[in-house]
Amino acid sequence: MRLLCQHPSVEVAYITAHTYAGKRVEELYPHLQAYREMRFQAFRPEEALQEAEFHFVALPHGEAMEVVPPLLEGGARVVDLSADYRLADPQEYARWYGKEHRSPDLLPSAVYGLPEFYASDLRDARLVAVPGCYPTAALLALGPLAMRGYPLDGCIIDAKSGLSGAGRTLSLTSHFAQADESVKPYGVGSHRHTPEIEGRLSELSFRPVRVSFVPHLVPMSRGILATCYLPLGQEVTSREVSEAYEGFYAGSPFVVLLGEGRFPETKCVAGSNYCHLGWHLDRERGVLVVASAIDNLVKGASGQAVQCMNIMMGWEESLGLEAPGVFP
Amino acid sequence: MRLLCQHPSVEVAYITAHTYAGKRVEELYPHLQAYREMRFQAFRPEEALQEAEFHFVALPHGEAMEVVPPLLEGGARVVDLSADYRLADPQEYARWYGKEHRSPDLLPSAVYGLPEFYASDLRDARLVAVPGCYPTAALLALGPLAMRGYPLDGCIIDAKSGLSGAGRTLSLTSHFAQADESVKPYGVGSHRHTPEIEGRLSELSFRPVRVSFVPHLVPMSRGILATCYLPLGQEVTSREVSEAYEGFYAGSPFVVLLGEGRFPETKCVAGSNYCHLGWHLDRERGVLVVASAIDNLVKGASGQAVQCMNIMMGWEESLGLEAPGVFP
Amino acid sequence: MRLLCQHPSVEVAYITAHTYAGKRVEELYPHLQAYREMRFQAFRPEEALQEAEFHFVALPHGEAMEVVPPLLEGGARVVDLSADYRLADPQEYARWYGKEHRSPDLLPSAVYGLPEFYASDLRDARLVAVPGCYPTAALLALGPLAMRGYPLDGCIIDAKSGLSGAGRTLSLTSHFAQADESVKPYGVGSHRHTPEIEGRLSELSFRPVRVSFVPHLVPMSRGILATCYLPLGQEVTSREVSEAYEGFYAGSPFVVLLGEGRFPETKCVAGSNYCHLGWHLDRERGVLVVASAIDNLVKGASGQAVQCMNIMMGWEESLGLEAPGVFP
Amino acid sequence: MRLLCQHPSVEVAYITAHTYAGKRVEELYPHLQAYREMRFQAFRPEEALQEAEFHFVALPHGEAMEVVPPLLEGGARVVDLSADYRLADPQEYARWYGKEHRSPDLLPSAVYGLPEFYASDLRDARLVAVPGCYPTAALLALGPLAMRGYPLDGCIIDAKSGLSGAGRTLSLTSHFAQADESVKPYGVGSHRHTPEIEGRLSELSFRPVRVSFVPHLVPMSRGILATCYLPLGQEVTSREVSEAYEGFYAGSPFVVLLGEGRFPETKCVAGSNYCHLGWHLDRERGVLVVASAIDNLVKGASGQAVQCMNIMMGWEESLGLEAPGVFP
Repeated sequence: MRLLCQHPSVEVAYITAHTYAGKRVEELYPHLQAYREMRFQAFRPEEALQEAEFHFVALPHGEAMEVVPPLLEGGARVVDLSADYRLADPQEYARWYGKEHRSPDLLPSAVYGLPEFYASDLRDARLVAVPGCYPTAALLALGPLAMRGYPLDGCIIDAKSGLSGAGRTLSLTSHFAQADESVKPYGVGSHRHTPEIEGRLSELSFRPVRVSFVPHLVPMSRGILATCYLPLGQEVTSREVSEAYEGFYAGSPFVVLLGEGRFPETKCVAGSNYCHLGWHLDRERGVLVVASAIDNLVKGASGQAVQCMNIMMGWEESLGLEAPGVFP
Repeated sequence: MRLLCQHPSVEVAYITAHTYAGKRVEELYPHLQAYREMRFQAFRPEEALQEAEFHFVALPHGEAMEVVPPLLEGGARVVDLSADYRLADPQEYARWYGKEHRSPDLLPSAVYGLPEFYASDLRDARLVAVPGCYPTAALLALGPLAMRGYPLDGCIIDAKSGLSGAGRTLSLTSHFAQADESVKPYGVGSHRHTPEIEGRLSELSFRPVRVSFVPHLVPMSRGILATCYLPLGQEVTSREVSEAYEGFYAGSPFVVLLGEGRFPETKCVAGSNYCHLGWHLDRERGVLVVASAIDNLVKGASGQAVQCMNIMMGWEESLGLEAPGVFP
Repeated sequence: MRLLCQHPSVEVAYITAHTYAGKRVEELYPHLQAYREMRFQAFRPEEALQEAEFHFVALPHGEAMEVVPPLLEGGARVVDLSADYRLADPQEYARWYGKEHRSPDLLPSAVYGLPEFYASDLRDARLVAVPGCYPTAALLALGPLAMRGYPLDGCIIDAKSGLSGAGRTLSLTSHFAQADESVKPYGVGSHRHTPEIEGRLSELSFRPVRVSFVPHLVPMSRGILATCYLPLGQEVTSREVSEAYEGFYAGSPFVVLLGEGRFPETKCVAGSNYCHLGWHLDRERGVLVVASAIDNLVKGASGQAVQCMNIMMGWEESLGLEAPGVFP
Repeated sequence: MRLLCQHPSVEVAYITAHTYAGKRVEELYPHLQAYREMRFQAFRPEEALQEAEFHFVALPHGEAMEVVPPLLEGGARVVDLSADYRLADPQEYARWYGKEHRSPDLLPSAVYGLPEFYASDLRDARLVAVPGCYPTAALLALGPLAMRGYPLDGCIIDAKSGLSGAGRTLSLTSHFAQADESVKPYGVGSHRHTPEIEGRLSELSFRPVRVSFVPHLVPMSRGILATCYLPLGQEVTSREVSEAYEGFYAGSPFVVLLGEGRFPETKCVAGSNYCHLGWHLDRERGVLVVASAIDNLVKGASGQAVQCMNIMMGWEESLGLEAPGVFP
């Protein structure tokens, strides 16, 4: 909603909520004065379809797949921010998310909303599954290498996320006094973004890729830094790596290449839709270290959703999203 | 620069720096990709006058007054973010800033750049002195009461600021390991924003006002919260207070009144030019508590400077500044 | 438990919990390896009385008063960290805490556990009510002035607290992404520590005292800074103020006087039982500014409880509590 | 100094400083009231030798090696916290630290002060080189595996450190407004702790080990989390890994094994000398993930120095160091 009120071609017509249905937007979010007169509605498909032609669904996984089908059936186009349409295989969904997929028929037509890799599919998409925040950071770092044919199997993705990544749900983990001044790994060996990362890297490189993905919580609100380690062997050169990135991202408005030896910091992308990328090739050890920084709530979620919409609507990809990071 | 690259009617033509002259903007500030091709220049008045028609001067106090006169003489309009033209009286400047004022002749024509109170003077101003961050927060909270004739003498202003308030200058005080997880008062009885606050409140209320102003550092990057305590006595009513604020701020695009009993938090205005205001009237004790929240780097500095420019140029006051706070 | 495992004269015999009954201490609190073999028990009065002779009760207000009476009846001595026995008047308790007091008969004999002021009463106390965190900070700053006869009525207490002050209970307010990078007032005009502060200041100064107390949340885990503003008039001298503090705190092991013009920061007392005090007398404005810093979880809660126990047991007041603040 | 004032067998007799020579300790560090009467002295070897029998040297690398030789010649025992005596090979020192080693003759007798691995050498050591903070975290995680013969070559060490790791030296990097709300890698491919880690792992495993070590800054004051990834292949079992750790650390008072599937957080060791260790064996991918958490200023520096002293003096290894982490 913060992004949409700044978007020149969008008018927000219908806003829904569960717990807060009936409340004025401004009451809960005093920074959103642009919606001063609006109230959260309880979601009703017919109403949604009547009020708006384009829909963002931002529900917990398992709930989105109840809401998306009626919207699509009603003729609308939908960008879904949940995990429900990200994995191609409903079996895999069941395994990682612990529940049966209830609209598996929509999976084949759902486009993975990572515009840097799937822009052409997005143009005509009617259902887009916005990637998870970690997969976005990881794929922007590793995707161009995958497409170049580098062997990614066995690579390590050590990711660090701010606390907003866990959502507004209350838990001891996100209690300020617990999270502040602390770093910790979590979900080691079991984080649900693992199959999403592996699936897309396999797809992009046309061969099976397994990765070791370990997310960490760091004491900040926003931001993900993904540090990736690729055992490339000693033949790859700095020049090849630079060319892989520069070639691939030449037309991408939101990926900023800091280049070899210059590394990103999350603060530079805070509040923005940008991804900053830097790398170091350690030829002695045969390892390439790539780090990507994004704002998990923007490029890792809502900003990416708007970027997808822009493409779907035939607008400029960066429309309403050009604001730079709020640094410092 | 972050704000200007989003401003629809501005083109940045000339950027200067001391230490970093010659460096590419993007090298120091990778979030400012909009200036990818530009470099910081060493300041030369003739060049500045040739390249640009409108100038923002953001130098330490004492240095601005060397740079502003030649720009004005060259026919330009100037918004100065330093303290050099904020105090009407050069003697007072000398006392608080410890140095002789070197362009006192410009003081009478300098307009105090707080648009909510001085908009009409700003329209034709050629030199504008942007208020300090604390005075901005304090005056937005107290100014309407001063103009309403409430006795402000003896009021308490307890202000809390993030660390960016101290600038980029290095000091132990702003070292992360010192500042983090700590709150402390500083400059008690000696902070240079005291005469600025007292002078403007006296001016607005047509009588001498003394305040007790105590700033504190809190462990965050951005934001000021000013909690003000006014011993009003027991006759003032809630309704009068509300009317004072609502009446005064009716046409102000950047002041959001949360109303009685609802208090602001700095995070809601982070990165934005908004000021959030809330208050509580304790009739039993005869005290009115008013709290204002701003982003010290935006409404407390650069955003306010842009807002002044908008008025000086005859543009919409809020042009390029409508972005809401980046919350959470 | 962190403090007790370091205490040379204490053996922890019995630890209870509601939700976590049955769990190993170390499982929930891996830093408490000293209790590696112990489990949380569900509380049973007889068991408690059998296992231990001295009891700390750390329950929410309203629950403590169910547990304290049976312990006292069983002959034990009790230090209660809740609010249940802090206010002398059960009516006032009902008004501020919204429930009937269920053991009002114990109130007259409950000693207020602020050793700097009530040490003599503590020696023989059987029930001690440990002060709230804010009252501790406020009373250490203002108590000596109250006892000296300075007029405290109308003074302002602007307090800033870290998030641990709110306890482990989950709420949006203490969610990291909400609290981080933000300062906000809360409970303005309604915080339950108001009557506690006013009651004790009235008691110490032998006249009714009303204060304006406004607490704020600042983004840190531990620590309270209370900035107090006293309208003293212009007759009081710096020397008198210094003498008041130095005289009063001469024998107090935990109060460190930084003196006039030198102000405390919470980080210096983090993890410790110390209170740092500094002040500034603004004779021009007739206002004395006093600031006190404590760790809300130690001097503002558990450390103070242990200090009370030390006095009750006839031990050295500072036994097991001498550890300095963990700075930086 | 914070740790020593709590140590039962130590009396601090002589404290030195450069910039602050002549200042009272308490003036700079108000939390160190235990040294209320002491002042920092300008260092003079004769005076040092006369006043104290045991010396901690905490100087920047390159300066320690000027101070250590005269102390040793004077018959004292020295624990050095700099990097000057950590690397066995003076050539390697010159390469990584950019200067000639000026007391290479002392290198052979300097004992590496990691008690968990070198306790027997420490007993009679006259010169001890306390490990760097990152090597401490990395070696506690990997050392037992190295000694067990697991192939460590090619392992990845992704380390996250709080800002105090950079010392009190002022730099933009440690400016609060820059570091706050940001994570970033630094020193990639060039951090000086790399040869220290590789050298000791090679020594412990009797074969050459190269690692990819990437440190990151995270916005907290204290703490290091080292996440290590070992490509073990698929034969190693969970049980073997657990046995390696449990066997090795059976008698180590400061290493807490959280076990498989349970990961450490830095907050639990803040202010303490403990190291928490957890791991996960991903047999499918043939990767072992081990994470260790320490307080970089305690187990990663001063606490470890005191632990070394305890062993050198024949005292209980944990004397004066038992305080648990200050959580939350």
